[in-house]
Amino acid sequence: MSQYNFTFSEVMTKKTKPYGKDLAFGRYFTDHMFVMEYHHQKGWYDGKIIPHQPLTLDPASMIFHYGQTVFEGLKAYATKDGEIQLFRPEENIARLNRSNERMCIPQIDPDLALAAIKELVRIEKDWIPKQEGTSLYIRPFIIATEPYLGVAPAKQYKFIIILSPVGAYYKEGINPVKIAVETEYIRAIKGGTGEVKTAGNYAGSLIAQQKSAAKGYTQVLWLDALERKYIEEVGSMNVFFKIDGEVITPELNGSILPGVTRKSVIQLLKHWNEPVTERKISIDEVITAHKEGRLEEAFGAGTAAVISPIGELVCEDNKLVINNGKTGETARKLYDTLTGIQYGELPDPFNWINKIDV
Amino acid sequence: MSQYNFTFSEVMTKKTKPYGKDLAFGRYFTDHMFVMEYHHQKGWYDGKIIPHQPLTLDPASMIFHYGQTVFEGLKAYATKDGEIQLFRPEENIARLNRSNERMCIPQIDPDLALAAIKELVRIEKDWIPKQEGTSLYIRPFIIATEPYLGVAPAKQYKFIIILSPVGAYYKEGINPVKIAVETEYIRAIKGGTGEVKTAGNYAGSLIAQQKSAAKGYTQVLWLDALERKYIEEVGSMNVFFKIDGEVITPELNGSILPGVTRKSVIQLLKHWNEPVTERKISIDEVITAHKEGRLEEAFGAGTAAVISPIGELVCEDNKLVINNGKTGETARKLYDTLTGIQYGELPDPFNWINKIDV
Repeated sequence: MSQYNFTFSEVMTKKTKPYGKDLAFGRYFTDHMFVMEYHHQKGWYDGKIIPHQPLTLDPASMIFHYGQTVFEGLKAYATKDGEIQLFRPEENIARLNRSNERMCIPQIDPDLALAAIKELVRIEKDWIPKQEGTSLYIRPFIIATEPYLGVAPAKQYKFIIILSPVGAYYKEGINPVKIAVETEYIRAIKGGTGEVKTAGNYAGSLIAQQKSAAKGYTQVLWLDALERKYIEEVGSMNVFFKIDGEVITPELNGSILPGVTRKSVIQLLKHWNEPVTERKISIDEVITAHKEGRLEEAFGAGTAAVISPIGELVCEDNKLVINNGKTGETARKLYDTLTGIQYGELPDPFNWINKIDV
Repeated sequence: MSQYNFTFSEVMTKKTKPYGKDLAFGRYFTDHMFVMEYHHQKGWYDGKIIPHQPLTLDPASMIFHYGQTVFEGLKAYATKDGEIQLFRPEENIARLNRSNERMCIPQIDPDLALAAIKELVRIEKDWIPKQEGTSLYIRPFIIATEPYLGVAPAKQYKFIIILSPVGAYYKEGINPVKIAVETEYIRAIKGGTGEVKTAGNYAGSLIAQQKSAAKGYTQVLWLDALERKYIEEVGSMNVFFKIDGEVITPELNGSILPGVTRKSVIQLLKHWNEPVTERKISIDEVITAHKEGRLEEAFGAGTAAVISPIGELVCEDNKLVINNGKTGETARKLYDTLTGIQYGELPDPFNWINKIDV
């Protein structure tokens, strides 16, 4: 129980849970949701847990026209002992508020946001799937709801949390994915919104993703918009390359999303005394390292996919098969350690786990 | 009457029209709206005119998370003779489909879109305000409605048209506005979404606008994201500078919105045999021209504001007072001609007007 008294309206008839089915990702939603309102004269108010239901919004609501919105993604995990664990939720909430700042959306009390997440997950605990690799995905988001056709920060918002029982984000699961380097479209540039989690970043990326999917690639690897040569991210993941025994990831430069899994990967590698460097890395450097047999591994890291090895990277005429298209030992060790901590099967030396009382 | 049979459900009780009040911009909405659905297996279907009412959308609808959306803005004008006129609606519809292409949203039949606009405006004709400078703003937009938490083009959409009786977009009206050059944040870059009308472009711009509004400036002038020196646009307007008798506007470069008013301004100037050039123009060139007394005028052009003279332009330590802070003769002539054509008080030599049968 938290210090916050959220109203709870229980659903009359609970849905059938989709277990036994292939959950995939983001297709099923639980019985309840959290909703809180903001009005510029009242601040945030009326936090409540209610049945998962359609939002009723005026068609002039600013979210539909000017895209003022932020979101987060994190997961709740069921342990074998029946405990429920969140992984570094404070990091997601801190990033939500950084996103809010960039997008001119009012800050949310982090303690309140955490209490709302925990209370909702506690109510929906029977929705947390138990099969290996599954979890309950938590999607907090804020939308501008004021009905007004003018480009200005809104005076009214909704903060909503919905939950979705999920399996693997990529159909490949932990198996290596194929990624194409995008050379025409760009994702973000310093001074824009690339380092915060807001809808427009994703909307702009769809055309490149569609183009690469048509060629059989799971995702695109984005290059920097300025020089079109430095590696940024995969859009749903940050990216790491192991060259000559050193793990290299693009440094945070104002256009890359600062991933929670990215940060955790760096911390784990340092903890293991394995060389890890955050710096600019060009696609040419990766291609050259591959040609010279020095590119040992490549992998993505993100909440949805955890660790996703990259088995093949294509950049125009260069097709790089990495580690014979197999999962490398660093990716495997990171995946095993992260999921081991997340599912409570390994010790948590960094205090990353936040348990929910059931 | 059109060849399209849109269902019409008339509202039971009509709203009181806000006349006599200061309309401002985008605050009032008419009694009815147009809505059409898209499903990937059915295409666009079920176009209907219904009472203006809230949308009911699952909180997982992709518009709220990944921002897949496009919009347009155009106006209907009442002439003194009681006719209703649209200004170049075909241009807006063509741009809507270009925006759709970039944002991976299915194309809309341009004839159907035009018929929907005309039928809705015809039904709402009593909402068109009559005072000088007022009009009925038309906002067509498309939103991704599929409930799915995954970054991919949606399989379901809504195409909606809402109407708003409007006055001046800027409180200054045709009087000169003060604009600040933005040097920290950027709006768009080639390869991104700057040249299409999508929500994310506007969401990302709010912080700069808020910063400049706090200093007393109406809008920001965006510089290019690559070199941070070439002038792009004002975000709600394209921009023109008259230097040494020549009107110069930034060329369309993949990050600037190709405005319908911009295009009309260029056509009018050419028609008048006045020098007009589309090319790169740096902020330094404008500052130098001002220092040397060669900057005669600056003005913005857009559907919402029509022509908006810039009386003061500030760029870091340089404060440029342009034409003594007064409306210049080119801006005035363009404003008078454009509004003259729009309100049916001047001949329409370019066939820009599309009349609605009443």
